[in-house]
Amino acid sequence: MPRHVTIKEVAAAAGISYQTVSKVLNHQVKVSKQTEARIHAAANELGYHPNSIARSLRSRSSGMIGFSWEPHPPDQSNQIYSQFMESIIHYSENVGYHILAFPYKPGSEWIEAYRNLIDTNRVDGFILSSIEKGDTRIPFLQGQNFPFVAFGRANPEWQFPYVDVDGAAGMRMVVEHLISQGHRRIAIINWSETKSSSVGQNRMKGCMEALKNAGIVIPSEWIARGEGDFSFAYQTSIQWLDRSSTERPTAIITFSDVMAIGAMNAAQNLHMLVGTDLAITGFDDSPLMQHLIPSLTSVSQPIWEVGRIAAEILQGILNGTPSQNQTILLEPSLIIRDSSSQPFHSV
Amino acid sequence: MPRHVTIKEVAAAAGISYQTVSKVLNHQVKVSKQTEARIHAAANELGYHPNSIARSLRSRSSGMIGFSWEPHPPDQSNQIYSQFMESIIHYSENVGYHILAFPYKPGSEWIEAYRNLIDTNRVDGFILSSIEKGDTRIPFLQGQNFPFVAFGRANPEWQFPYVDVDGAAGMRMVVEHLISQGHRRIAIINWSETKSSSVGQNRMKGCMEALKNAGIVIPSEWIARGEGDFSFAYQTSIQWLDRSSTERPTAIITFSDVMAIGAMNAAQNLHMLVGTDLAITGFDDSPLMQHLIPSLTSVSQPIWEVGRIAAEILQGILNGTPSQNQTILLEPSLIIRDSSSQPFHSV
Repeated sequence: MPRHVTIKEVAAAAGISYQTVSKVLNHQVKVSKQTEARIHAAANELGYHPNSIARSLRSRSSGMIGFSWEPHPPDQSNQIYSQFMESIIHYSENVGYHILAFPYKPGSEWIEAYRNLIDTNRVDGFILSSIEKGDTRIPFLQGQNFPFVAFGRANPEWQFPYVDVDGAAGMRMVVEHLISQGHRRIAIINWSETKSSSVGQNRMKGCMEALKNAGIVIPSEWIARGEGDFSFAYQTSIQWLDRSSTERPTAIITFSDVMAIGAMNAAQNLHMLVGTDLAITGFDDSPLMQHLIPSLTSVSQPIWEVGRIAAEILQGILNGTPSQNQTILLEPSLIIRDSSSQPFHSV
Repeated sequence: MPRHVTIKEVAAAAGISYQTVSKVLNHQVKVSKQTEARIHAAANELGYHPNSIARSLRSRSSGMIGFSWEPHPPDQSNQIYSQFMESIIHYSENVGYHILAFPYKPGSEWIEAYRNLIDTNRVDGFILSSIEKGDTRIPFLQGQNFPFVAFGRANPEWQFPYVDVDGAAGMRMVVEHLISQGHRRIAIINWSETKSSSVGQNRMKGCMEALKNAGIVIPSEWIARGEGDFSFAYQTSIQWLDRSSTERPTAIITFSDVMAIGAMNAAQNLHMLVGTDLAITGFDDSPLMQHLIPSLTSVSQPIWEVGRIAAEILQGILNGTPSQNQTILLEPSLIIRDSSSQPFHSV
């Protein structure tokens, strides 16, 4: 990143007092056209377009942080984004900023929305979420040298400030828990491989590592990838479970709560008792999962903390005092409930 | 409401041209101190503090609409507010505004947050939600003559712009549906009477009207009011259902999906089959309710439409072209599912 140019440097380059430069850039005083021209020439020479200069002046700052997210399908909980938003609203205000929320748009239209907010000086920085692999917003904002922090990781080789939850660690906890309950025949329902999110890949990595550490090999047909919705999980589970007790999995790990509910419905329709005949786990610990019958074991993400750290990292960047560590990975926690807590004695 | 003062009126009172007054108030031109003083004197005489004047100038407008909401308890879905927020973000942008999201704070601190945004010219108007009876934000904003629209109603005698969903109509649909399935012994789980929201009162009114229309009288002990959470609904349902089949209700209406799940858990623990032995209904049609076992009958609110209309009403006020009808009530719809769709033959 190009370094941050201060008013002091512009003043030194223009040979004009700091106070005058500050006031002129801040539209607090009228000076001669000549003086004004000298100030702007110095600013331009330092390689910044006027917006960057305006942003560097606290009094010209918008006091706003932009935030936009891709909505979830209506049958799925968007609790994660609601919580995240509440958290960044809370912590941004603590450090003197408000959140400007703007709509999700597909593809390059989204970039235009970000560009527009930058060009019109509406925001001082962005908090990104719904991060994908190859997410075009990241190189765009880096190219603009515009402050941002992301909730989520993108391509491993990209360097940018982010906070994320360690999905691999969450899945290792799930697998280790199931193994400790006696499960060896474990099946996994993941999202499609073509889905560009790195979230699924990280979670899968955690599963495979924990299985490998335990010396468990699962047949490839017990790793399903597809739409990642209720129907896909339901259909897949029916296929796996509609077999003799020695030929079916004893535990199904899913990558989301809605998929876990799909698997639970499949078991129910085959008259199997979840928690006794079969263990099922979800991810996200959405509201009401604790009240399902049986209650669902799920991985809970520390979303409030993600929001707090994201706001703090961005504040550091905006203040010109960036924190040492700008890539933070938080541990999720496994909430063990009835859907997986019965000891299982392998047949 | 005090009427809206235009630049034209300030100009007339000051005896200075419209163009000059506009430019001065808009900081687009420097004039003599004398002229400036005359303009500000005229503005003050018309009874408005500078902010009102600034707001009346489109070029000085913040382009922002403020929004804040009371978060839900973590075990309950906040899908309604997420959807509402996505909708107002979408439709506000369509009419040239962005949403400034700010944190919920208890009591008078919340008013201070609103006041602060007004005093610092950060927003042009507000969209209110989480409306309570006697909601202090409404008289405050009316006293400030500051534009706003509410999602929800407050005290019946208060006049202010709002959009709301007709909860009474939703409950009439529920009761009529249950009656059409053969139910006569109907119990109701509501929120506490002390809860200041008018939402529960409107829904209760709908229930009682529909029961009365059908000539059904239910015993007072079958109307429960309490915390409105899972535990309250669970305990209440256990008490009702743990009796002989002729002494217990055949249907339980609840005022939220989380309470419906509480009732479902109670029935399950007493080995009753929901949908066959007992009908249960919820409200809000939260995500995943369609996937419960059995799937839950619930009332779905047209939240996207609420957001659209709220943004349009506010835009009209901001543009000085308020729409004729500023109090809009939308019909919800009943989503009938397995938890109530079996015909019931009264014992």
